[in-house]
Amino acid sequence: MYRTHTCGELRIEDVSKEVILSGWVQKIRDKGGMLWIDLRDRYGITQLIFDESKADAGLIRKARSLGREYVIQATGNVIERFSKNPNIPTGEIEIVVSKLTVLNPSKVPPFTIENETDGGEDLRMKFRYLDLRRVVVRKNIQLRHKLMQHTRSYLDSQQFIEIETPVLIKSTPEGARDFVVPSRMNPGEFYALPQSPQTFKQLLMISGFDKYYQIVKCFRDEDLRADRQPEFTQIDCEMSFVTRDDVLNTFEGLIKHLFSIVLNIKLDAFPKMTYDDAIKMYGTDKPDIRFGMKFVELNHLVKGKGFQVFDNSRLIAGINATGCAGYSRKQLDALTDYVKRPQVGAKGLVYVKYNEDGTFKSSVDKFFNQEQLANWAEHFQAKPGDLMLILAGDPSATRTALSVLRLYMGKTLNQIDNRKFLPLWVVDFPLLEWDEETRRYYAMHHPFTSAKPEDIEKLDTDPGEVKANAYDLVINGVEIGGGSIRIHDRKLQQKMFDALGFTEEEANQQFGFLLNAFNYGAPPHGGIAFGFDRLCALFGGADSIRDFIAFPKNNSGRDVMIDSPAPISEEQLKELAIKMR
Amino acid sequence: MYRTHTCGELRIEDVSKEVILSGWVQKIRDKGGMLWIDLRDRYGITQLIFDESKADAGLIRKARSLGREYVIQATGNVIERFSKNPNIPTGEIEIVVSKLTVLNPSKVPPFTIENETDGGEDLRMKFRYLDLRRVVVRKNIQLRHKLMQHTRSYLDSQQFIEIETPVLIKSTPEGARDFVVPSRMNPGEFYALPQSPQTFKQLLMISGFDKYYQIVKCFRDEDLRADRQPEFTQIDCEMSFVTRDDVLNTFEGLIKHLFSIVLNIKLDAFPKMTYDDAIKMYGTDKPDIRFGMKFVELNHLVKGKGFQVFDNSRLIAGINATGCAGYSRKQLDALTDYVKRPQVGAKGLVYVKYNEDGTFKSSVDKFFNQEQLANWAEHFQAKPGDLMLILAGDPSATRTALSVLRLYMGKTLNQIDNRKFLPLWVVDFPLLEWDEETRRYYAMHHPFTSAKPEDIEKLDTDPGEVKANAYDLVINGVEIGGGSIRIHDRKLQQKMFDALGFTEEEANQQFGFLLNAFNYGAPPHGGIAFGFDRLCALFGGADSIRDFIAFPKNNSGRDVMIDSPAPISEEQLKELAIKMR
Repeated sequence: MYRTHTCGELRIEDVSKEVILSGWVQKIRDKGGMLWIDLRDRYGITQLIFDESKADAGLIRKARSLGREYVIQATGNVIERFSKNPNIPTGEIEIVVSKLTVLNPSKVPPFTIENETDGGEDLRMKFRYLDLRRVVVRKNIQLRHKLMQHTRSYLDSQQFIEIETPVLIKSTPEGARDFVVPSRMNPGEFYALPQSPQTFKQLLMISGFDKYYQIVKCFRDEDLRADRQPEFTQIDCEMSFVTRDDVLNTFEGLIKHLFSIVLNIKLDAFPKMTYDDAIKMYGTDKPDIRFGMKFVELNHLVKGKGFQVFDNSRLIAGINATGCAGYSRKQLDALTDYVKRPQVGAKGLVYVKYNEDGTFKSSVDKFFNQEQLANWAEHFQAKPGDLMLILAGDPSATRTALSVLRLYMGKTLNQIDNRKFLPLWVVDFPLLEWDEETRRYYAMHHPFTSAKPEDIEKLDTDPGEVKANAYDLVINGVEIGGGSIRIHDRKLQQKMFDALGFTEEEANQQFGFLLNAFNYGAPPHGGIAFGFDRLCALFGGADSIRDFIAFPKNNSGRDVMIDSPAPISEEQLKELAIKMR
Repeated sequence: MYRTHTCGELRIEDVSKEVILSGWVQKIRDKGGMLWIDLRDRYGITQLIFDESKADAGLIRKARSLGREYVIQATGNVIERFSKNPNIPTGEIEIVVSKLTVLNPSKVPPFTIENETDGGEDLRMKFRYLDLRRVVVRKNIQLRHKLMQHTRSYLDSQQFIEIETPVLIKSTPEGARDFVVPSRMNPGEFYALPQSPQTFKQLLMISGFDKYYQIVKCFRDEDLRADRQPEFTQIDCEMSFVTRDDVLNTFEGLIKHLFSIVLNIKLDAFPKMTYDDAIKMYGTDKPDIRFGMKFVELNHLVKGKGFQVFDNSRLIAGINATGCAGYSRKQLDALTDYVKRPQVGAKGLVYVKYNEDGTFKSSVDKFFNQEQLANWAEHFQAKPGDLMLILAGDPSATRTALSVLRLYMGKTLNQIDNRKFLPLWVVDFPLLEWDEETRRYYAMHHPFTSAKPEDIEKLDTDPGEVKANAYDLVINGVEIGGGSIRIHDRKLQQKMFDALGFTEEEANQQFGFLLNAFNYGAPPHGGIAFGFDRLCALFGGADSIRDFIAFPKNNSGRDVMIDSPAPISEEQLKELAIKMR
């Protein structure tokens, strides 16, 4: 037997028990006559004590020979500690060790196994198995487990069935790039790894499973940004005989349950906002509504007054920065530089200071008088002491830039409360997006998303104006999930493929099985998928999803620990009937 | 709102309620004046009734226009049924329909959606989404869900953490063939799909996670037999600071829990049998111990009596078939033909009848007298009326053939109780297997399995004799799971690779990260993995795992429903820097 207790278990009630513990040497303090060792396992830390005046010399020698991260087994007596440590649950006791066994020695680790480590990202990733020993990282993985558990128990309680869909499926050109798998048994043919189980979950609805979920790995061969992984995990769900609000209510319930049980936070009802409103008021389809600073549009007030920049712009809009009228020239220049960076992309910044004395000072005083500026201020609901910041140009670019500026000002002015979680349903997305390059429409969500019933007619006449019965869940400005009510009618699905420029042959080749399935009694259905890695990061209060994945890949899609991907043998290539170009 | 209730929900207490149901038309009975429809969903069947004398003519017309598998919505009143159906939970009520909406029509399905269907395997697989509507198939998928749920809740309660390991990993030539995934971002390099998360779960132990589990997809590019799938699901587990019996006790607990909660069967303690005993007594490492007929070895009794076949055989062994002394010539010839089939592979069959009158009649009367045969009978513990069946030859082939004969006789004599579940731990497997063709040893389990401590020395001198600290769980003659205590010592792991004929370079190239990890305080650890598809089939009382997988592949690894694998575009090949041979 390696242990009678874990390192997180012993309490003052256990005093005088004979125990065996096993774990890792976290820290050794050697004060000459006395020696203490912090023994660590997943469950906690227990202090071992060696007293030179009482213990066997061999035992002391052995204890002195230990190094950090040695795996040891210690037998001894639980005693009450002289100086207690109120910060850890085992802080009232320690173990007087009578027997010590080295189960495995350890080289000196390449970085310290502490919450604040001296190891850089690259080194920690190469030795990820040591990085995972750090309590901060382990806690993330434990949080992930907890979120999985409670997601499942909630959905189980709502009569959802977890069904595994296949990983070896078929490549479809629509959407992102697929990872493919050459088939040895079918030379010249390939499987693809799923970007999502979308078609399978729809088939499960056609099969009558009614409520499906799966916490499932998905794959996308995309050029990776800091926060993307080639393999990622989704909470994937689908329901039959539901309207949009049935879906939203069910999953609002899930998210509330998770916040309540994991973070002990009770959330209010989630507000809904249309996509159009989100764009108009926040310049983004994932607004952070923890703070105000909504956009104010000024076109009707500012055009035709001789200021070329405004006259030539299709949109003039701004935000009101409370209490910033005192900004210096330098501060305003810095803000102007900020919005003119290529990542933000504004051409310039117009400001209007609403001075404490009621007067206005702006960068466009040449074109607008005090009365006009007062009128603007009224629109902004600005007060003396505020600063109005205005951008102008093409509507889409202007809104995007203003959205970045809004977030920046929100942070600068400490208007964003990090302890607050404000979920938001964004609804009524456009069904289609026009792509200038290929001169065709693409499905904004995916080709199975239904249009809002009142818009279906416009599919033929004005496809760009059709709204989808689609929804995203946004929390604190982060997109956590999204879904839609699906098309369940074969003819409508065909119409959608037409709008996307698929020939009937292409549609049949790629989605024939689904189109065919629609012929045999497909129920009305809809669903949602949540980015599980992102949800974990949100709950853990972190920006990067990588910290919440046990073995993540880097920005080149490499696992630097196992050194993958890697070349394979000529024999393997031959068996697969492929060769390198 | 599509429904107020499901089709499995309404009871006699609900009589006189106005309800809305949605579902599929299972059956229509039209008796002229009256029309009944069985409406089906996942939760059950509810009977709808249309009375021509009371209802609107349009409604009746609409009801008559429905076909099988139409998706409809029905509004109506719950009434008590005149002739009740005690076989279904909703059998006391029916719905007098006042409003009927066709949500989606259906073509006539290619086979009947009944438990006994007229559709053949191929057709059902092509239309798997319709096959899944059949209650027998749906029940299998629901059983699978239940087993997953309870596996998780048990392991959660034992402080196991579910951790997702990567799907895109690295190819290793050891073991079965890998599926590989070309990397676009790293041309010329490939990921591999995991055959199991073996190395990752060991790394998680080195990370200190202590108890890990995952219900996880694994992949093997093997030529498929009827009961193999290229992607399959494992319950994968690993524990630290454990001995073999800690692991066995934990997972005996899991299996007992599943039997108790899912099938309401209380299992006794699982017996343990060594691999050597299993082979000696049952001729297989997965004995079905629901019945006796253990092997009896006769070498010491039968050699040197002039019967060449026995004299030239390294093993003479048989089984006792109770009450079969009356077998006719024809029956005995049939048995002989059975064991001589190439799949069984025996050269011949020797029989000894123990007649009711106490005399013996055998196929070897020329060589053995009554006294000698009586002596054999004593060894067999045979009684008058029994029949002894004896095979001879090379030990391994003879045992294999006798094992097949034993199962055949067990079935023939109705000695196998199908309602009984008898689990068995088979332990102390050989560590290594010699392969004549490549003239080297292979790991019987995998290269990370530890030898039994008392055998480690023999690794250098007599590797074939070394026993592994490995175990399989066998239930009713089916291997359900297997595992081992792992090597946690770098030097021992190196020794193992030496025995397997790996050069240090090869070992480092393939498993360098694991060998390296052993340098930094690897704890003693061990684990187990269960074939989840197989476990589901066992619980469902079926032989084929395919019935328990929502979307299985056929024997050529094809998904005939989505028609995958399939060719990919030249553009995709180019991006991946590969071409066909």
